[in-house]
Amino acid sequence: MITSMHNPRVKQAIRLRDHRQRRKEQLILIDGVRELARAIAAGAAVREVFVCPELCRSEESLRLLENLPESGGQRFDVTEAVFAKLAFGQRSEGVVGVAEVPRRPLEDLLLPTNPLVAVLEGVEKPGNLGAVLRSADGAGVSALVVADPRTDLFNPNTIRASLGTIFSMPLAAAAPGDVLNWLRGRGLQILAARVEGSVSYTEVDYRRPTALVLGSEAQGLTSLWNGDDVRAIRLPMLGAADSLNVSAAATVLFYEALRQRMKDADPFAYPSLKNHRANCR
Amino acid sequence: MITSMHNPRVKQAIRLRDHRQRRKEQLILIDGVRELARAIAAGAAVREVFVCPELCRSEESLRLLENLPESGGQRFDVTEAVFAKLAFGQRSEGVVGVAEVPRRPLEDLLLPTNPLVAVLEGVEKPGNLGAVLRSADGAGVSALVVADPRTDLFNPNTIRASLGTIFSMPLAAAAPGDVLNWLRGRGLQILAARVEGSVSYTEVDYRRPTALVLGSEAQGLTSLWNGDDVRAIRLPMLGAADSLNVSAAATVLFYEALRQRMKDADPFAYPSLKNHRANCR
Repeated sequence: MITSMHNPRVKQAIRLRDHRQRRKEQLILIDGVRELARAIAAGAAVREVFVCPELCRSEESLRLLENLPESGGQRFDVTEAVFAKLAFGQRSEGVVGVAEVPRRPLEDLLLPTNPLVAVLEGVEKPGNLGAVLRSADGAGVSALVVADPRTDLFNPNTIRASLGTIFSMPLAAAAPGDVLNWLRGRGLQILAARVEGSVSYTEVDYRRPTALVLGSEAQGLTSLWNGDDVRAIRLPMLGAADSLNVSAAATVLFYEALRQRMKDADPFAYPSLKNHRANCR
Repeated sequence: MITSMHNPRVKQAIRLRDHRQRRKEQLILIDGVRELARAIAAGAAVREVFVCPELCRSEESLRLLENLPESGGQRFDVTEAVFAKLAFGQRSEGVVGVAEVPRRPLEDLLLPTNPLVAVLEGVEKPGNLGAVLRSADGAGVSALVVADPRTDLFNPNTIRASLGTIFSMPLAAAAPGDVLNWLRGRGLQILAARVEGSVSYTEVDYRRPTALVLGSEAQGLTSLWNGDDVRAIRLPMLGAADSLNVSAAATVLFYEALRQRMKDADPFAYPSLKNHRANCR
C-alpha cells in the first residue's frame, strides 16, 4: 500500500497530466473504471494501475480489478489521500492507469467496404474530441480521422469525454493534406459541414462510401476543403446562434447517415451494422 | 478606471461566482461578448458591465460597447489585472456583466400552436444544459423546460455553453410533477428518451405537438415518466458505450423533429419556422 505522495511511481504518474511529459515519456493516463476497462479490452499496453480500494466498490470496479492481471499492468494500492492527487476528474472511481501511447497512423486504418468516416480538422478542446468519439461509437461510424498530426489524441479529458471509446473506435491522425488524399484515394464522397454550405444535410445521400468533415468551432474548415469534389453541407440554424457545438453537429450528421443507411433494413437489426467498422492492423 | 482588486464592486462581482451568493443577491454573471449582447437584446436587467478596453477590440466587442448605454447597465473600465480576476472562462473577451436573475416560471411560458418542447429532468453539469440550449436554439425548439426547480439555471458555465442563447430561448423551470401536468394539459405527445426504449426515435412522428423528455446521464429518467401516455424512444447505440452525452442525444432528437417538420416544406424556407417559438409574457 503506497501511503506517500512522494512515492516515485505516484510522482511520475502525476507528472503525466502535463502533455509535454506524456509526449516525452510516450505514456498516457487513464482515469475511470469504464475508461480503463475499455482500454484493456482494446489491447492497450497498460503498465501500472493505481487502485484505491475504498473507492473501488461498484460491481464494474470489482470486475475490472479481477481482469487486471490479464492486462499485464502492475497493480499498486494507494491510500485515499494519495489517490486524490492521482485522480483527474471530479468523479473518483478509484482507478487510474498508466499505459503506452497507442499509435494511430493513418496507414494502419483499414476501412470496410461501405465506410462512413468522420474527419475532424481542428480540435480546440480535448473534451470535444472525446464527445465526437462517443457519438461516433454510438452511431457506428467506421473510423474517426483527426486531420492534425499535432493533436494530443489521448489527453485525459478526451479519454474521459469519450467514456473510453477512444480505445475501441478506429482512429487515426495525420496531416490535413494526407487525410484529403487518403479519402480521395478510397473514392469516398467528401461532405464538409460549413455554416454557409449550399445544401442542407438532409438532402444528401449518405448510403455510399462517405467522409463527413468538420472544422474547429472558431475557425471552421480551411481552404483545403474547397475542392470541386468536396460538397459543403449545412445544418439549419433557426435561432440566435449561427452554429452548433462541433460535437452536436457531428452527432446530427452521424445519426442522419445511420438513419438513411438503416431505412431499408429492419430497424431492430442494429447489431449487424457493428461489422461495418474499420479495422486496425 | 478601476485599478484595485479590492474595489467593492469588483469584489462583489467576483463573489457572484459562488451560486449561494448569486441566489442571495439574485444576481448573475455574464462573461463574454456574444453572451452579454444576447442578454441585452433579450431585455435582461443588466446592472453593471466591467470592461477591459485592452481586451475589447473585436468589431463585435465595439458594437456591444456602443449599445451598452441602452441596456441601462453602468460601465466600469478596469485594468487587465483586475479583469483577470473577474473573467470566468479561458477565453477573455474583455467584458463581464452583472444582471438580475431572469425569472422563468412555467406559468409565464406561452406555446405556439404546434409546439416542440424539450424537457430536461436532471441536469448534472451546467455545461450540458448550456449545450442543450444552444442546440434547441439552432433547431428552432419552441421552449426548454427544466423539470427541477432547484436548478441554478443561470450558472456562468451554462450561459457560456449556451453562447448566450439562454437569454433568448423560451425557458422555464418547475417541479417534475408540475411539468408533466403542464404537458398533459396542453395535449402534447410525450416522448421520453430511454436507453431501453422500445421504439427507435426514427419511427416516431414529431409533426404534431410534442414534448421530448431527457433525464440525467447517470440516473436517466425517474419513474414519473412511466405513464401510459409517455412513449419511451431510444437512439441506436452500435458501439461500446451504452448512451450518448445528453446534449448529443437531445440534438439528434431536435434535428430529427425539425427534419420531419420541414420535409414537405421548401427546405430553404427555414426562417418561416422562426415564428414557431414560444413567447414569454
